[in-house]
Amino acid sequence: MTFYQQLEQHYKKMAKLEHLAAICRWDQATMMPEGGNQARSEALAELAVLHHQQATDIKLKVWFSEVDREPLSKEQRASVIEMKRQWQQANLLPSDLVEAQSLAANKCEHAWRSQRGKNDWQSYSTNLEKVVKLARQEAQIRADATGLSRYDALLDLYEPGMTSKQLDILFDEVKSWLPELIEQIQEKQIHDQVILPLGPFPVAQQQQLSLAMMEKLGFDFNHGRLDISTHPFCGGVPTDVRITTRYDENDFTSALMGVIHETGHARYEQGLPEKWSGLPVGKARSMGIHESQSLFFEMQISRSENFIELIAPAAAEQFNRIDDPAITAENLTLLNTRVTPGYIRVDADEVTYPAHVILRYEIERDLINGHINVADIPELWDRKMSEYLGLSTKGNFTDGCMQDIHWSFGSFGYFPSYTLGAMYAAQFMAAMSKEMNVANLIRERNLQPIFNWLDRHVWKRGSTVSTEQILIDATGESLNASYFKEHLIARYLN
Amino acid sequence: MTFYQQLEQHYKKMAKLEHLAAICRWDQATMMPEGGNQARSEALAELAVLHHQQATDIKLKVWFSEVDREPLSKEQRASVIEMKRQWQQANLLPSDLVEAQSLAANKCEHAWRSQRGKNDWQSYSTNLEKVVKLARQEAQIRADATGLSRYDALLDLYEPGMTSKQLDILFDEVKSWLPELIEQIQEKQIHDQVILPLGPFPVAQQQQLSLAMMEKLGFDFNHGRLDISTHPFCGGVPTDVRITTRYDENDFTSALMGVIHETGHARYEQGLPEKWSGLPVGKARSMGIHESQSLFFEMQISRSENFIELIAPAAAEQFNRIDDPAITAENLTLLNTRVTPGYIRVDADEVTYPAHVILRYEIERDLINGHINVADIPELWDRKMSEYLGLSTKGNFTDGCMQDIHWSFGSFGYFPSYTLGAMYAAQFMAAMSKEMNVANLIRERNLQPIFNWLDRHVWKRGSTVSTEQILIDATGESLNASYFKEHLIARYLN
Repeated sequence: MTFYQQLEQHYKKMAKLEHLAAICRWDQATMMPEGGNQARSEALAELAVLHHQQATDIKLKVWFSEVDREPLSKEQRASVIEMKRQWQQANLLPSDLVEAQSLAANKCEHAWRSQRGKNDWQSYSTNLEKVVKLARQEAQIRADATGLSRYDALLDLYEPGMTSKQLDILFDEVKSWLPELIEQIQEKQIHDQVILPLGPFPVAQQQQLSLAMMEKLGFDFNHGRLDISTHPFCGGVPTDVRITTRYDENDFTSALMGVIHETGHARYEQGLPEKWSGLPVGKARSMGIHESQSLFFEMQISRSENFIELIAPAAAEQFNRIDDPAITAENLTLLNTRVTPGYIRVDADEVTYPAHVILRYEIERDLINGHINVADIPELWDRKMSEYLGLSTKGNFTDGCMQDIHWSFGSFGYFPSYTLGAMYAAQFMAAMSKEMNVANLIRERNLQPIFNWLDRHVWKRGSTVSTEQILIDATGESLNASYFKEHLIARYLN
Repeated sequence: MTFYQQLEQHYKKMAKLEHLAAICRWDQATMMPEGGNQARSEALAELAVLHHQQATDIKLKVWFSEVDREPLSKEQRASVIEMKRQWQQANLLPSDLVEAQSLAANKCEHAWRSQRGKNDWQSYSTNLEKVVKLARQEAQIRADATGLSRYDALLDLYEPGMTSKQLDILFDEVKSWLPELIEQIQEKQIHDQVILPLGPFPVAQQQQLSLAMMEKLGFDFNHGRLDISTHPFCGGVPTDVRITTRYDENDFTSALMGVIHETGHARYEQGLPEKWSGLPVGKARSMGIHESQSLFFEMQISRSENFIELIAPAAAEQFNRIDDPAITAENLTLLNTRVTPGYIRVDADEVTYPAHVILRYEIERDLINGHINVADIPELWDRKMSEYLGLSTKGNFTDGCMQDIHWSFGSFGYFPSYTLGAMYAAQFMAAMSKEMNVANLIRERNLQPIFNWLDRHVWKRGSTVSTEQILIDATGESLNASYFKEHLIARYLN
């Protein structure tokens, strides 16, 4: 066996452990009775230890130095690059830091669950300070190894190749037009008569509607399924993708749009290159690209008037509400494109969402780089919320800087992925639209050409090239925020 | 750490891998879409390799030799004995034999699925011969290591401590009274007017009925759940026991009795000693004892007239058939105690079942010991079926010697567990009945004292003592087939 073959074998074995972990985590969130949690968590922790042992196996050092001398194809070179990325990341952190982080994150997250409701920033910030301190240590170690800045070294874990220098340019541009755009849209929408559909919408029927839409969107039910969990997610493995949602009997659109969002994630996973199955190079490229697919399905396709014309009759029939004026394409379109600045990111609409992300990005960047401290967060949060969305969060930590779970469990550098995803999605749609009349295809219920484009330009590329290269090959240029702006103007101001 | 503590830590780690395998196997049988099977099987195979590596870890040899010099409690000694049992078994077989067995079994089982329907003994026997040849090799290796006969060395894997010498005595006794007993019961039942309940019985309502009965039987839903699979089983882990059934819309009793059977298995698992959780000594004692618990729940408790008086109104209400004469306690009792000799073991009633098991036992014993060959099976099968149940299977391989999956996948020595379980269950009931009026307790819907007895005498003992010792401590004597006979006479001839 060549060294390359040995590396492939090694990483494919690790993927099998990842497979088992993914299914058991899915089960934990969807099927497991509460009483099984302790043993399950311990079993998964043990698997993580075994996985880490394999990821840092001493043999790998030799193999990586030898493999460079072997004659490899271009794709195999890319494969080795991704293996090395994973290997270097796995080896960087001393195990006492990992353990300290895990303990601090568990403590902070657990306490956050009750502190948030009590608006108790004082107690929360004590825990968060420890989490931030350790995250800075991690960032420093990663920065030393990569030559990146501290924050960029964390960002790179989720969005390889992206830097805060680029993000500053992109986000500053968005900030330059977003507040005015929001105002204009609100003015335009002020006289819209939106009817709120009145529940109950039984779970069984919502589920049927969700499954029907998943089918329309090409979800492969031979390689995946839909279930229920408290926090919706896309899990499992590419050959068996598990997506989840939660149903609210008073509001069927929230679960439906959630399922469509997860279906976008799922189709990316289901469409990853089989040829590289089980290898790092065969995995999804980045969190931002992943989000671009869910947002392409949710925002670009499904919140379009043409697709809602498909949803409305299906929903009316499913709920036996053929004559309900709330369940018409026209009303559902108004409902699904309503823009309202609010405090809560996860409830935000497509237009105000970037403001939430940019605010968090600016704060976490300065926090990790050491330019601000935990104590500075509330004031900064309040000032930026006022500036970007015209809302004050003074003294309101619950709906302000304590609303997200991310920082509590030590995840810094993830937030930008959401808005990068929205931008990638808009840029993909703009490029796709040069090759086909997307609106017509949706109107004709002929989505296959759309999926084929995504499959060719995104899904089947896996991680064989950089995110930048995916963008250039698919759209002819690097990430350009103007496509996102044009999308918003076209949808909300025309 | 002492050597004993190191051993405990090692085996508890292995139990965590077993946990993940159990959940992923459950998922494979209940949730997984077909397209996920290949990757799942490979992932589970990889986990089995890791588990085998740990089970045969070279360190164990040293630890086992050192631990004998440590001061251990009686229970810790028992714990070491069970670890050693597992360790020795894991080390015995050369990996090329294990691989050859796996290949031969897969081939034979796969082909069997179509050959059985075609009654194609000729082709099937060619594959089976290879499976038997390898099973004999395994048996020889195990026999050399244990000093047991070849067949007994395999039997010992499922029913530690049991020998064919004992089985011959027990089963010969059963054979001495069973054919006549069956005849007498059939004569007695000949004029019974049994009404077959007429479907459809919707799956959702059958499920509700099953869950209600599980609750009555003390299933802990905080540590387990009920789902659907093609072949019913009890899986998962003690903190999260997963039982399954399959529903037939034309016959609600089959799923119901199946669920009650699996509930017996489940309560044993849920009742295993927490103190020894994750260690071999904390596991179920044997397949026979496991079956004794499922049969105690199904046969001893639930097919009794008194329990059926509880089932009948619940079923009538669930299916909205309050006045259905087929769903009365009287009719359901007749239905659930009907005795009819038939070809198929899995469809057999409580009385004729042992005949199916004894026949298989006698054939597999002589086959593994080399006294007969695969080619001799059909004739022996036919002769024994005629002798024990008065049925001829001449030329009918489909409903004769090709009906079970066990031998196809190389499982020899398992069949006796079924009837040992029935005998243990009857003996437990006889002993329990000396301490309490079981029939009255069932009539008063007060099952807790029954469960407490089983918990104390069986569940909480785990594998801390031998099967023989469990029997003696619980019932005052070794296994004695006469309790089973008395149970059958009391239920079917009085």
